[in-house]
Amino acid sequence: MANDRPLILVTNDDGIQAKGIRCLVNSISEFGDVVIVAPDKPQSGMGHAITVNDVLRLNKTRLFEEYKAFTCTGTPVDCVKLAISEVLHRKPDLLVSGINHGENSASNVLYSGTMSAAVEGAMEDIPSIGFSLLDFDADADFTGSEWAVKEVAKRVLNNDFPRNICLNVNIPQRSVNDIKGIKICRQAKAYWEDSFDKRHDQFGKPYFWLKGEFYREDRSEDTDIWALDHGYVSIVPTQFDMTAYHAISELNEWKF
Amino acid sequence: MANDRPLILVTNDDGIQAKGIRCLVNSISEFGDVVIVAPDKPQSGMGHAITVNDVLRLNKTRLFEEYKAFTCTGTPVDCVKLAISEVLHRKPDLLVSGINHGENSASNVLYSGTMSAAVEGAMEDIPSIGFSLLDFDADADFTGSEWAVKEVAKRVLNNDFPRNICLNVNIPQRSVNDIKGIKICRQAKAYWEDSFDKRHDQFGKPYFWLKGEFYREDRSEDTDIWALDHGYVSIVPTQFDMTAYHAISELNEWKF
Repeated sequence: MANDRPLILVTNDDGIQAKGIRCLVNSISEFGDVVIVAPDKPQSGMGHAITVNDVLRLNKTRLFEEYKAFTCTGTPVDCVKLAISEVLHRKPDLLVSGINHGENSASNVLYSGTMSAAVEGAMEDIPSIGFSLLDFDADADFTGSEWAVKEVAKRVLNNDFPRNICLNVNIPQRSVNDIKGIKICRQAKAYWEDSFDKRHDQFGKPYFWLKGEFYREDRSEDTDIWALDHGYVSIVPTQFDMTAYHAISELNEWKF
Repeated sequence: MANDRPLILVTNDDGIQAKGIRCLVNSISEFGDVVIVAPDKPQSGMGHAITVNDVLRLNKTRLFEEYKAFTCTGTPVDCVKLAISEVLHRKPDLLVSGINHGENSASNVLYSGTMSAAVEGAMEDIPSIGFSLLDFDADADFTGSEWAVKEVAKRVLNNDFPRNICLNVNIPQRSVNDIKGIKICRQAKAYWEDSFDKRHDQFGKPYFWLKGEFYREDRSEDTDIWALDHGYVSIVPTQFDMTAYHAISELNEWKF
């Protein structure tokens, strides 16, 4: 008898040892057969990076006893590519990434390794979802997230998934009973005001730590920021076509 | 007397020693005062990665005798952030990135460090342009590119730059006289068919090199792929809002 349970690839950017990926595996496993390929170390902020100037390694891990699980020395996008080519030998029926320890709303989607894995899935025509919890704590409470994963996954598997997109799901740090619902949103125009913490090493030479403040300025009711601030799970359909179509006619007036 | 020449920040992803950044400096310098902050080593394929789990260093370099120039230990996006905060102490009037040794058309924009530096500029509300030549050779001929840089830069500086976008400029490998012109385009739906070259180290353990083939399938006349294949320089206005607006109503039918 053929196995017609969906094949589900799980990855993340916080690394295989993060609590978030364990919670994602626990909540998604009822929907299909899970295979895990995740970075062997934290890869936060890696965006859509791929490894072109170095080799990649893939190692079996026993961290998830009941599942086929591998660590990869590369980025989240490398994990997706290697999983398809060298582990699954086919495209999975569903790709889920996360649950990220920290927010990936608004323009954070560009810096996020979690979301880049999902965007890579979209480019491969795989229904793909990135999940992020608004809590950076390594020991964050993921019970609200586990509810959200199930609510989203069952709809994704019961509907036709739109082509050329993936879903960016952010979950507020609230208990399940305090979550108001789930809203489809657009990416807010919130942004980082960067600064650097300049320090000096033992030789007196300067070095820098990136820091910054996240300005949640675009608070229209249709944004992910609004939804999260008001206790909703936000879902932004996210595409990899970055063309600014509205600017094409303006640029044509420049008379090239 | 105030200096009203534009302040131009130059960066790239092939690293400060690449021929492409030298050609970009040479061709852009007539338009303003140039400052260079570029990676100290190749950062191809780094996408929109930022360095959050490590420190960054900034070192003065004499590689560009006549200009203020620094190397940075981080990614192209780190270079932009550090340049604004710690070198220029203000936003530049123009940001140019490249000239990349290799194509950044179609969905390559997502993997490209060159373009991610320009996208970061757009997020900072700086007129920003990424330039890429369709030639991976370290000693590629950039004379056609130098013409293209000047044609684009003078229009950017003489017009109001549209907000929230940057320009993705790709240049075919042709001599100046063989370039047919410059076309405003959309990002083609071309894609990579990935594969890995599996090898074994001296201990018999496997490792992988990412390779792949680029399928130029979407050849409509309005795409960057079409323009490049027909001898034109392509310009795609590129935005950082990745919302798939067309999918919002469809997802609302899923009854969350």
